[in-house]
Amino acid sequence: MLAQFVLEDDVRLVAVRGGLGAVPGIRLAGVHSGIKARKRDLALIAFDEPQVCAAAVTTNEIKAAPVLVSAEHLAASGDAMRALVCNSGCANACTGERGDRDARATARQAAALLDILPAQVVVASTGVIGVPLPMDRLQRGLERCAAQLENGGKSSHDAAEAIMTTDRVPKLSAYSFYHGGKKHVVGGIAKGSGMIAPNMATMLAFIATDVPMSRDALQAELLACVDESFNMISVDGDMSTNDATYAFAPAGADAPPPAFGRALRQVCLDLAQAMVADGEGATKTLTMHVTGARDAEQARAVARAVINSNLVKTALFGEDPNWGRMIAAAGAARVGLDPDTWSLLLNGKIWVERGAIEALSEAEAHRELELHEIVVELQLGVGDARATAWGCDLSRDYVRINASYRT
Amino acid sequence: MLAQFVLEDDVRLVAVRGGLGAVPGIRLAGVHSGIKARKRDLALIAFDEPQVCAAAVTTNEIKAAPVLVSAEHLAASGDAMRALVCNSGCANACTGERGDRDARATARQAAALLDILPAQVVVASTGVIGVPLPMDRLQRGLERCAAQLENGGKSSHDAAEAIMTTDRVPKLSAYSFYHGGKKHVVGGIAKGSGMIAPNMATMLAFIATDVPMSRDALQAELLACVDESFNMISVDGDMSTNDATYAFAPAGADAPPPAFGRALRQVCLDLAQAMVADGEGATKTLTMHVTGARDAEQARAVARAVINSNLVKTALFGEDPNWGRMIAAAGAARVGLDPDTWSLLLNGKIWVERGAIEALSEAEAHRELELHEIVVELQLGVGDARATAWGCDLSRDYVRINASYRT
Repeated sequence: MLAQFVLEDDVRLVAVRGGLGAVPGIRLAGVHSGIKARKRDLALIAFDEPQVCAAAVTTNEIKAAPVLVSAEHLAASGDAMRALVCNSGCANACTGERGDRDARATARQAAALLDILPAQVVVASTGVIGVPLPMDRLQRGLERCAAQLENGGKSSHDAAEAIMTTDRVPKLSAYSFYHGGKKHVVGGIAKGSGMIAPNMATMLAFIATDVPMSRDALQAELLACVDESFNMISVDGDMSTNDATYAFAPAGADAPPPAFGRALRQVCLDLAQAMVADGEGATKTLTMHVTGARDAEQARAVARAVINSNLVKTALFGEDPNWGRMIAAAGAARVGLDPDTWSLLLNGKIWVERGAIEALSEAEAHRELELHEIVVELQLGVGDARATAWGCDLSRDYVRINASYRT
Repeated sequence: MLAQFVLEDDVRLVAVRGGLGAVPGIRLAGVHSGIKARKRDLALIAFDEPQVCAAAVTTNEIKAAPVLVSAEHLAASGDAMRALVCNSGCANACTGERGDRDARATARQAAALLDILPAQVVVASTGVIGVPLPMDRLQRGLERCAAQLENGGKSSHDAAEAIMTTDRVPKLSAYSFYHGGKKHVVGGIAKGSGMIAPNMATMLAFIATDVPMSRDALQAELLACVDESFNMISVDGDMSTNDATYAFAPAGADAPPPAFGRALRQVCLDLAQAMVADGEGATKTLTMHVTGARDAEQARAVARAVINSNLVKTALFGEDPNWGRMIAAAGAARVGLDPDTWSLLLNGKIWVERGAIEALSEAEAHRELELHEIVVELQLGVGDARATAWGCDLSRDYVRINASYRT
């Protein structure tokens, strides 16, 4: 996943270790506070200087208390944010007035510990809906977080672990690049392996950089990258009440250099693809390219429809070369598919031509599907727009994991 | 499922045996032609007199050849249809020009056998996409069908079996009622247990009656009933290329009696609910009522979003009282949910009040979920519109069945 070098339009990005912790001026901690039985469940991120903050949050109409409280804080002081608190194991969603009070109390405590204002704190939660936060444990844990804050990869890894729910591995990504003779970094951590669907900020991701810019510029860059990464992945088509992406940067001049946008995009792609690879019960990933589309919207809609189909996902799990399910899912998107012009490629080989002619035998296609990372290209044959979406298979383990999430 | 008596607005419907075969003037057969290895796979339905025919077909943009050919035939002679041929085991979809030729040849052969015109024949197929019909076997099978045609329950059962794919049980329903001193019947057969999604004619259903009416009247009655039944069920959210509902009636006066609409609706509901109960791998059904909605569209959208959620379905399979997933799915429908006014009822008992207050303990809710038929009511608290959708759970068996459909 982590390309060591990405060279694009003369911008050289270098993958660096440490994720969010690779960004100068940031300190992190992740501890076990007791919200969960055994694992780390509370992360604190603190910035040495005030940051502009951009956000892309869930479009679900039922929003968790921390999402709403953070929106308030960003409205009040989004040009000068200083910290982020995130717990796992409890979503603090559908928790009524108590949920609102608890989210505010968490921000107040973090502010007191860091000697900043409560409105300078972003709060986030992830876990089971409808259960109140165990505030006594969270508060003791937050004190320990504040005492352990430090820069670098170890604390970044701890924080990435502390925001995990059903994730099997922590998700970190960071890239450096040179601009104006100075080295800069964009880094992030993320969680998400179930309740991941297209068309929203689909999980938690926290990203930072040391490149100064305006809040509006950061917001525009973030939305553009989210649209190509987190909004193009699917594990199960479910949308969460809590999901949010927050990006932080030092306040500065209007426009960041182009290299920043490239690095941010690569961090978002890395984190998004890591989520899909770690999809609940996933044994395979599907990279779904849609090319030759009338426009980008058509390409995006078709790519997302295919990765969202349960029948495509189960066929993938079974290594069953059932291309008909992909086409049925594409047609069900109802964005103007021409039944006679499409062709399908599997791992770069022509699979089906012009709507009907099977070019790979069932045995050949089956062998291709035995790979761990499957790449399918659906050429619509009507234009030159394209889009890519990423998904995973639907396995018996997805059902096992989700049939008893609480226990 | 089959209520013996349904009394509504003074209309007394009596459930009768035989499904489609209970309708006078219809003859059926279902045989094993060899498209499938062992099971019945070819059905023929013939009407003694010309029939008006109404249709509701898949909205998938990739439509199978028989769907397109039947649309042509209905355009040409939809006031005087005489027969329907349906095979299972092969969808004849994405089969190019050959698929079109095969569908037409099937209609021609049925017409020759029954001494009618090819355009008086509806053709339908269901099964794997992208595989051509084995026409030699189909043709020999169709000859045997024509020789075995008869009225009544046995042949109706054979035909219902012959259109099954992954269905475990054949699906038949029929009701009789008196109008103008004469007994009338509405009967139907259907198939469908996977690739069942809301927002379309979601499977194959063939319905007939001996109540004379105009084609327009039949079409209007069919669409109204489909919208409340087949369009409100979900097994896996996938939409097929082949699905179609065809209804037949003797040509006659404009308006059928109100009792006809009631009987048609009940037949559609029975068949739709039978599909959900027979959902691939299903161990439980969920009847999802949404009440107190602003309007019917909001109620329908929310009900369908909940039954379509993989996380709701897996929680149901695990008997896990995770109501947060239902609310998250409802909020993800984005049709204007008020987060503070909703309440949830489980099997008639208050589960969660006004967005946050849990009225049933986890243990109590778990006991309710141990039942086979689960009824949930989501009161939106903003109006008085309502809708009902039907779904089933997502089990390990769904994955097993769909990971190797071909084998």
